Amino acid sequence: MTVTMDDIRAAARRIAGHVVETPLVEDTALSARLGQPIWLKCEYLQTTGAFKLRGATNAILSLQGKVRGVVTASTGNHGRAVAHAAKTLGVPATICLSRLVPANKVQAIRDLGATVRIVGKSQDEAMVEIARAVAEEGLTEIPPFDHPDVVAGQGTIGLEIGAPEAVLVPLSGGGLAAGIAVAIKALSPGTRVIGLTMENGAAMAASIRAGRSVEVTETASLADSLGGGIGLGNRVTFPLCRDLLDDVILLTEAEIAQGIRHLGRAGHMVEGAAAVGTAALLAGKFVPAGATVTILSGANIDPALHARVMSGASEAA
Amino acid sequence: MTVTMDDIRAAARRIAGHVVETPLVEDTALSARLGQPIWLKCEYLQTTGAFKLRGATNAILSLQGKVRGVVTASTGNHGRAVAHAAKTLGVPATICLSRLVPANKVQAIRDLGATVRIVGKSQDEAMVEIARAVAEEGLTEIPPFDHPDVVAGQGTIGLEIGAPEAVLVPLSGGGLAAGIAVAIKALSPGTRVIGLTMENGAAMAASIRAGRSVEVTETASLADSLGGGIGLGNRVTFPLCRDLLDDVILLTEAEIAQGIRHLGRAGHMVEGAAAVGTAALLAGKFVPAGATVTILSGANIDPALHARVMSGASEAA
Repeated sequence: MTVTMDDIRAAARRIAGHVVETPLVEDTALSARLGQPIWLKCEYLQTTGAFKLRGATNAILSLQGKVRGVVTASTGNHGRAVAHAAKTLGVPATICLSRLVPANKVQAIRDLGATVRIVGKSQDEAMVEIARAVAEEGLTEIPPFDHPDVVAGQGTIGLEIGAPEAVLVPLSGGGLAAGIAVAIKALSPGTRVIGLTMENGAAMAASIRAGRSVEVTETASLADSLGGGIGLGNRVTFPLCRDLLDDVILLTEAEIAQGIRHLGRAGHMVEGAAAVGTAALLAGKFVPAGATVTILSGANIDPALHARVMSGASEAA
Repeated sequence: MTVTMDDIRAAARRIAGHVVETPLVEDTALSARLGQPIWLKCEYLQTTGAFKLRGATNAILSLQGKVRGVVTASTGNHGRAVAHAAKTLGVPATICLSRLVPANKVQAIRDLGATVRIVGKSQDEAMVEIARAVAEEGLTEIPPFDHPDVVAGQGTIGLEIGAPEAVLVPLSGGGLAAGIAVAIKALSPGTRVIGLTMENGAAMAASIRAGRSVEVTETASLADSLGGGIGLGNRVTFPLCRDLLDDVILLTEAEIAQGIRHLGRAGHMVEGAAAVGTAALLAGKFVPAGATVTILSGANIDPALHARVMSGASEAA
């Protein structure tokens, strides 16, 4: 089970009109400093504030209406994307959440038109409820990354960034990185595709090192969107990331904070996950050898946290 | 002395390659709420963080190299734009500042490659020094707004926003508003062009009401870029704004703060001046009757002030 360039082209045709072709703008300050053109793919300006809408929209449209409803468990960018896409496409959406999810996050999902189902007190119990809803109610799960239609949707970003020397992609479950890598390696085989993630708790980086999907201990990070496992039964994103990424670079919290501050001063109010490419460039962990595109993946940062980071903090909490 | 559509087309040809064609993105949350498509012209992503680079670049290029150097007095968006454009174009730039300008602002101008000249302890004394430098040293002044080449440069934004039902433009000295109004009224005579500014100390709004350029008392505002007079001898921007703007809307500080917060939550970290269009839409002071474009004019906000506003404050200091 994999994803090809044809799948990504089909996804682009399918989701056109439902998602924004986000702007690509030069980071002129960084270009001047590093002597190579640095471009920012402003995917945080996507509807719902993150790239996740592409994959969710492609996955729901691929069901071709043969669906009683969709279900997922995320309160983050993926949950918002599924809720919004489902509402736009006229499909009922159910988001399963544990009792521990804060009320404001629950309300935000309800505001997007989804039904919220509160089950148990852990993410694991929410996952059990999804399995039950799929088996007994005939709902269709839209997984956050390990699904060919989700990966193909995220890969449409790769069709919008030309053929630079390198692309810097935030790396978590690997949906974004795998999709972009498939597109870029087909369009421009010489372009390097680099995954970037935080030093602590990066499951895909540890899995690539181990040669198989492994679990890691999660720690709080400014790049909280990059947390979470890749699934021990990972079928799609692990092999693609392992085979297609030219390198994986790990960033410290201080480096990610520096990336958030640099982008904020230029008007990009983004979450930590979106700042990892900029962080690697600023820290000298990635040295550009030509035009470089970094993917600003999402805007969903707590404004109070953003304010603390802008004033010099490097701690997530 | 006025500005025509031909001047703006010539400016666009002249500055191409020196400025960014900034993205136009939909504010999907506001579109959904108001029932009309609301578009954001992200001019805060312009190099140096504001639209001012267009006018400064056009004014310097229009000198066709027949210049010993350029001089201006701004520490704000215009000063940054002149310093950057002059450096890029290989022209010496001098920025005259009073002793009261904080050291960090002085350093920021020096970092852009300009020569800083500290004179006296008021903006008036800096203006006297500019007149002296023009008369005795043969330098050429690049004024912040009341100059045909500056207005024509800012007007190039009007060529990039199509033909919506209305355009909402931040209004200060009137360079941006006059330039955009000339372009839009030529391209799409039925499009309304609305100027927006703060309630207190808005010199152009008071001048249009009075029928002649008048001085106003300045007060601190979240939209500090919109402060300052329009010049009692105003020749270019006052007549154009008076004749071409369909309306001028005044915003309270609380309304501007609301605009900053709404945009921040969508990832646009902008200054107060850039948020006035959004503020008018949120406050119901402008009711869209069709596709509406609002100009996000600049990103140069103190991060500490932005943080205070995001957490609920409405006071500039």
